[in-house]
Amino acid sequence: MKKGCKFGTHRVIEPKGTLPQPAWKIDNDMNIYDNEILIDVQTLNIDSASFTQIKEEANGEVEKIKEIMLGIVEKRGKHHNPTTGSGGMLIGTIEKIGPALEGKTDLKVGDKIATLVSLSLTPLRIDKIKEVRKNVDQVDVEGKAILFESGIYAVIPKDMPENLALSVLDVAGAPAQTAKLVKPGDTVFVIGGTGKSGMLCLYEAKKRAGITGKVICLGTREESVNRVKKVGLADEYIIADATKSVEIMEKVKEITGGKMADVTINCVNIPNTEMSSILATKDDGLIYFFSMATSFTKAALGAEGVGMDTRMIIGNGYTKGHAKISLEIMRESKELRELYEKLYA
Amino acid sequence: MKKGCKFGTHRVIEPKGTLPQPAWKIDNDMNIYDNEILIDVQTLNIDSASFTQIKEEANGEVEKIKEIMLGIVEKRGKHHNPTTGSGGMLIGTIEKIGPALEGKTDLKVGDKIATLVSLSLTPLRIDKIKEVRKNVDQVDVEGKAILFESGIYAVIPKDMPENLALSVLDVAGAPAQTAKLVKPGDTVFVIGGTGKSGMLCLYEAKKRAGITGKVICLGTREESVNRVKKVGLADEYIIADATKSVEIMEKVKEITGGKMADVTINCVNIPNTEMSSILATKDDGLIYFFSMATSFTKAALGAEGVGMDTRMIIGNGYTKGHAKISLEIMRESKELRELYEKLYA
Ligand SMILES: NC(=O)c1ccc[n+]([C@@H]2O[C@H](COP(=O)([O-])OP(=O)(O)OC[C@H]3O[C@@H](n4cnc5c(N)ncnc54)[C@H](OP(=O)(O)O)[C@@H]3O)[C@@H](O)[C@H]2O)c1
Ligand SMILES: NC(=O)c1ccc[n+]([C@@H]2O[C@H](COP(=O)([O-])OP(=O)(O)OC[C@H]3O[C@@H](n4cnc5c(N)ncnc54)[C@H](OP(=O)(O)O)[C@@H]3O)[C@@H](O)[C@H]2O)c1
Repeated sequence: MKKGCKFGTHRVIEPKGTLPQPAWKIDNDMNIYDNEILIDVQTLNIDSASFTQIKEEANGEVEKIKEIMLGIVEKRGKHHNPTTGSGGMLIGTIEKIGPALEGKTDLKVGDKIATLVSLSLTPLRIDKIKEVRKNVDQVDVEGKAILFESGIYAVIPKDMPENLALSVLDVAGAPAQTAKLVKPGDTVFVIGGTGKSGMLCLYEAKKRAGITGKVICLGTREESVNRVKKVGLADEYIIADATKSVEIMEKVKEITGGKMADVTINCVNIPNTEMSSILATKDDGLIYFFSMATSFTKAALGAEGVGMDTRMIIGNGYTKGHAKISLEIMRESKELRELYEKLYA
Repeated sequence: MKKGCKFGTHRVIEPKGTLPQPAWKIDNDMNIYDNEILIDVQTLNIDSASFTQIKEEANGEVEKIKEIMLGIVEKRGKHHNPTTGSGGMLIGTIEKIGPALEGKTDLKVGDKIATLVSLSLTPLRIDKIKEVRKNVDQVDVEGKAILFESGIYAVIPKDMPENLALSVLDVAGAPAQTAKLVKPGDTVFVIGGTGKSGMLCLYEAKKRAGITGKVICLGTREESVNRVKKVGLADEYIIADATKSVEIMEKVKEITGGKMADVTINCVNIPNTEMSSILATKDDGLIYFFSMATSFTKAALGAEGVGMDTRMIIGNGYTKGHAKISLEIMRESKELRELYEKLYA
């Protein structure tokens, strides 16, 4: 059996020297290397931008969608949409585990998992497309896929609906990081606390900051804030536009008696909220930017411009145990689970 | 005397509710608020992008350059170039210190300082332009400026040339952060270690990692790497292109016996080096991105794609004591000072 690289570079066909994700074509031969996992694929969950593009190109015709999808995989060895550049994730069952992983992985043959690395780097072979579910961007297939040694995944829990688990797993990094960053007694400010990732962050923040801490939720709408209030996820609530940095600073100053936040978690889906995050946080505090709309230069120059020594962290979507930590929230909080099922499952 | 906001929002004329930097126009009346510092300005050090634009607009004519500069300050109350959006810094002498700052600042009337916040947020009045030094982007003036309470600055040291001090102060955040992040015994990898900020980082890394640590320098050219070797700033040297992530990973793997770096400092001036930074660093290591060419999304998605839990920090240009720490290097290392004077002063 051939020995593989942890990151799957042994499967890159062209251009050589790159990683599987940026590569144009990778090898989708289903004889595994010693450190790979073979998955029997059940469903592809195509990235929303990618699936929209494919539907348009196919004029919505199912047979044409199938043809385009098969074409992508044939050309590239992975479902990496060349137009949008994006992938998605998949659900399937473990079929084989490379011997080099023995003792290194908790997975067993027969486990049902969701991959948490993008389809844009996952070797895939589609034997047959069984059903295209156009409204939920999901496609049931017969096929196989490979998970690299560095590839992250989550075992699908048996005690909740698959769709609920998928929604939670999509944003799993944020609550897990919150759990690691917040200490007892901290004042935590969650910008975009009313959203899918934000609510999970509030929950973890309250748990970790404890009764001596304070958790502040910011959203823009009465409706979304009331939803969060009803479940009691935070101690204080602000309805405001996070692009208005001075207003946000004043509100947080008032709530904290001038002390400001120890930890700020940014979960918005819009640009230009770096300055609000900086001004709401203590000089020696910490900001975790989960939002993909974060601008590196606005954050770096913004903090310098106001002479703040704040530590600012780039929101890595992965952290150890992130799937476990976030799925556990759905078991701990009946109210949050109900709200989540209503909104996202 | 009127009470001012720490960040200078009291001087914003339009649009209200923003900070002085993004504001279109600020108040440059030179009667200070209780927490402001009045500076008698000697020289404006115009940002290179801004000065290039002004020179072009003026067809290189000195009188026209003066006219454009005076026009900017008259319209905006600050030297905030509306075309490039950038500012610069200034050198001057402390003339007055607001009473609310007593006991809060080390500055004394008569101190000569460089402001380390951008001219794009500094209230400025120019009474006369005395000399335009076109080749070094410097303009000698008679005029006054205001430093806000949150504004950072450095006292110009008397034991080195002004230009040398300015070059060091320009990148002061990087070595100061390095000093704070590196622990004894660490393996430190400086990408772009042959540049202006990189060399200072190497010096601090070596000092902090100590004899049980290991410092690795990456540059692209024989010439620049040899320069650094001669001064002995690192333990190991790599000549390679930092956009080639697999190659970089292999080289660092070889040098570290497979252990990889505890701390990686990214000081390059080109894009697409996020993945090399991630792959060269331990899973539980730390990456400090000082480079302004860093892409937030490439870093966040890149780490997730390879399942790495690496902590990634946005390079805030400011950290407490950064000017002191970086200027001190010029006193400690005669060799580095000579090299710096040759290259940048
Ligand atoms: N780092 C990663 O790996 C990773 C993974 C997944 C997602 N993400 C990113 O995480 C972010 C959030 O994702 P999500 O699924 O949680 O989004 P979401 O459910 O759509 O939530 C968006 C949140 O932003 C708030 N918001 C919108 N405009 C605002 C404004 N002007 N001021 C203040 N708050 C505002 C919303 O508040 P209201 O509803 O009250 O208006 C809501 O709370 C996105 O940027 C996404 O790209 C990152
Ligand atoms: N965060 C902040 O507040 C702040 C403040 C100032 C500057 N900066 C940023 O810091 C960065 C560096 O500034 P600097 O003044 O130190 O720049 P610099 O002196 O021009 O140095 C650039 C370095 O990048 C290296 N480099 C260029 N292309 C490379 C490649 N393909 N692979 C590997 N290395 C490569 C160069 O190596 P060779 O010379 O060997 O080719 C050199 O070591 C810039 O991006 C700047 O925007 C940030």
